[in-house]
Amino acid sequence: MTKPLSGITILDLTHVLAGPFCSMTLCDLGADVIKVERPGTGDDTRAFPPFANGKSAYFAAINHGKKSIALDLKSEADRAIFARLLARADVILENYRPGVMERMGYGWETLHAEYPRLIYGAVSGFGHTGPEAKRPAYDMVVQARGGVMSITGEKDRDPVRVGASIGDIVAGMFLCQGVLAALMDRERTGKGRKVDVSMLDSQLAILEHAIAITTVTGNPPAPTGARHPSIAPFETFHASDGLFVIAAGNDALFEKLCVALDLPLSDDPRFATNPARVENARLLKRLIEAVTIDRTRSHWIAKLGAAGIPSGPIQNVEQVLRDPQILARNMVVDVLDRNGRPAFKAAGNPIKLSGMADPTVRPAAPDLDGDRGEILRWLEDKG
Amino acid sequence: MTKPLSGITILDLTHVLAGPFCSMTLCDLGADVIKVERPGTGDDTRAFPPFANGKSAYFAAINHGKKSIALDLKSEADRAIFARLLARADVILENYRPGVMERMGYGWETLHAEYPRLIYGAVSGFGHTGPEAKRPAYDMVVQARGGVMSITGEKDRDPVRVGASIGDIVAGMFLCQGVLAALMDRERTGKGRKVDVSMLDSQLAILEHAIAITTVTGNPPAPTGARHPSIAPFETFHASDGLFVIAAGNDALFEKLCVALDLPLSDDPRFATNPARVENARLLKRLIEAVTIDRTRSHWIAKLGAAGIPSGPIQNVEQVLRDPQILARNMVVDVLDRNGRPAFKAAGNPIKLSGMADPTVRPAAPDLDGDRGEILRWLEDKG
Repeated sequence: MTKPLSGITILDLTHVLAGPFCSMTLCDLGADVIKVERPGTGDDTRAFPPFANGKSAYFAAINHGKKSIALDLKSEADRAIFARLLARADVILENYRPGVMERMGYGWETLHAEYPRLIYGAVSGFGHTGPEAKRPAYDMVVQARGGVMSITGEKDRDPVRVGASIGDIVAGMFLCQGVLAALMDRERTGKGRKVDVSMLDSQLAILEHAIAITTVTGNPPAPTGARHPSIAPFETFHASDGLFVIAAGNDALFEKLCVALDLPLSDDPRFATNPARVENARLLKRLIEAVTIDRTRSHWIAKLGAAGIPSGPIQNVEQVLRDPQILARNMVVDVLDRNGRPAFKAAGNPIKLSGMADPTVRPAAPDLDGDRGEILRWLEDKG
Repeated sequence: MTKPLSGITILDLTHVLAGPFCSMTLCDLGADVIKVERPGTGDDTRAFPPFANGKSAYFAAINHGKKSIALDLKSEADRAIFARLLARADVILENYRPGVMERMGYGWETLHAEYPRLIYGAVSGFGHTGPEAKRPAYDMVVQARGGVMSITGEKDRDPVRVGASIGDIVAGMFLCQGVLAALMDRERTGKGRKVDVSMLDSQLAILEHAIAITTVTGNPPAPTGARHPSIAPFETFHASDGLFVIAAGNDALFEKLCVALDLPLSDDPRFATNPARVENARLLKRLIEAVTIDRTRSHWIAKLGAAGIPSGPIQNVEQVLRDPQILARNMVVDVLDRNGRPAFKAAGNPIKLSGMADPTVRPAAPDLDGDRGEILRWLEDKG
């Protein structure tokens, strides 16, 4: 059992979410991640709630298994340590505003000249080019500006934020892809590359049908609540004990659904094709709910499941963390404390690879500067 | 200028969104993607609206630059072609329900024995293991079951779907990461791996603070509309001409905001720390809006931007597609038709790599079976 990134060392100057999410994935895939933090406070998220035993569960969930060293990159002594780390690292990650690394003497051009194999991964609000490159951003700024909020929420009400921080997370994921592609490439060429990912660009990259609709019709889509804008039935329905989801994405599934609900609609011209069903989605919802309202969610989910129709519950996060399928996939892991005892729960690694163990526990997140001694000894050993 | 995945061939049996989104990224990074479609109809999304000149803009946006061959994997002649493709491919991607590939004789164990360098990437609703592995899923089923819907929407109202299909897209992105890590690994080991990604697992992986909050407090978070649940001010505010976003993620930014708005709140104990501001978020919003309501959004976005405070507009997709920063980053590209004329707009590649061109146009999406001749000639040339 080996990890694909074993032997790869990541020098991680990022903080908060986008960059640390990227290095968490690289760590799960086997890389050694050395988190370089500013002395005193370290990563902002060390102070983010919620806390257990004085430690941030938020920080622990994203930084487990990494090592920490605190370096003041304005001090000569710490810059000397940083130079030795750079000489040993395969990848450097940073999420400063464009220009900050250059001012510290660590811009891509400088580093690439000195360490040609080093891969340089940067994630920023708006990217390293363009008129607004130096503007600051947070998740919500790019969710709003990038269009996702304009299609999320209820019709004729104000847009809402996506509850998960996809402004950060999707950018961290694209950064991870760029770094992995550069690592693969370097095996063949021996040369590192710079990866420049912007949170705003990343929002655009996930809009899919909304861009297609806008460019063909000229009309940007509006939010549609819990309903898919161009597939029906594909939304929430009331059962006797609450809402659940039915997603019948094509005509064959709609026919199966009509059979399962004993609802003779599939020959009705108002519902015979997906475009017709979308046109008559409100009526269709009422007709389906007239049936589903009489029995419980679990009755319908079991019945539709047996008939091969995609459906399911709307779960809150407490229910998600007890879901048997999710637990069977090791998707809820224990993050240990420094004494090896379970301290927090966090999401597991969604990338299941043959030949790589999928443990149900994770090492502790590092204390600030907690691995300084070990990291310095490692540099000594490397000469 | 070279692409990191040049020379890599992807045999892509996936359809609809999660798998094709993965192979789109691999294609943008330089891989040759051969889309293997079922004869007659091909990928379902060829029939998805909107259409222009009889072609689906939805399909075009996700499949540009790929090649298509239609193969009936139950016919001996087509299975022989498929075997020759397998012998030449670096990666096979599929999104069938677990068991289907095995029944066709193309399960991972079989392929790995015959083609040990081949990487096998699978994306499915619930993954290849666990009690519900064989259940079907669509985007909305996993958005609902995976918890994201439970934290998206307005307080005390029904949950809403995320307008972008993140159930599919995030899974496709994790699959892409797994494939890239396996490609890197294979350069060193010579062996392929299986990558097994589930849409449901992938939803769990992006919940971040919601899992931390639930496991520490025992209480799952509820939707909070357009407001971040644990940072304030970090939400939408009314200007004289509509809503915009302010995201002041720490005390220093809040102080700057108070100065910019001429609103002396930073010494007030109700607003002196982030936890206090979260506690008093509704009052804080009213006090800020009492100032912002007098001037336009663009006034405030310019003023706050100059002061280094993250803020911005809420744009619909039509506005997004005209945003100067987005255009400067080549994030809106023309997808050409078969005659080389711009036919559709689509999102560009968010992974900007040094030494790789970032073109503003993309080749056409393939017609069904449109590259059969070229693919067969390529196989001949390879012997």
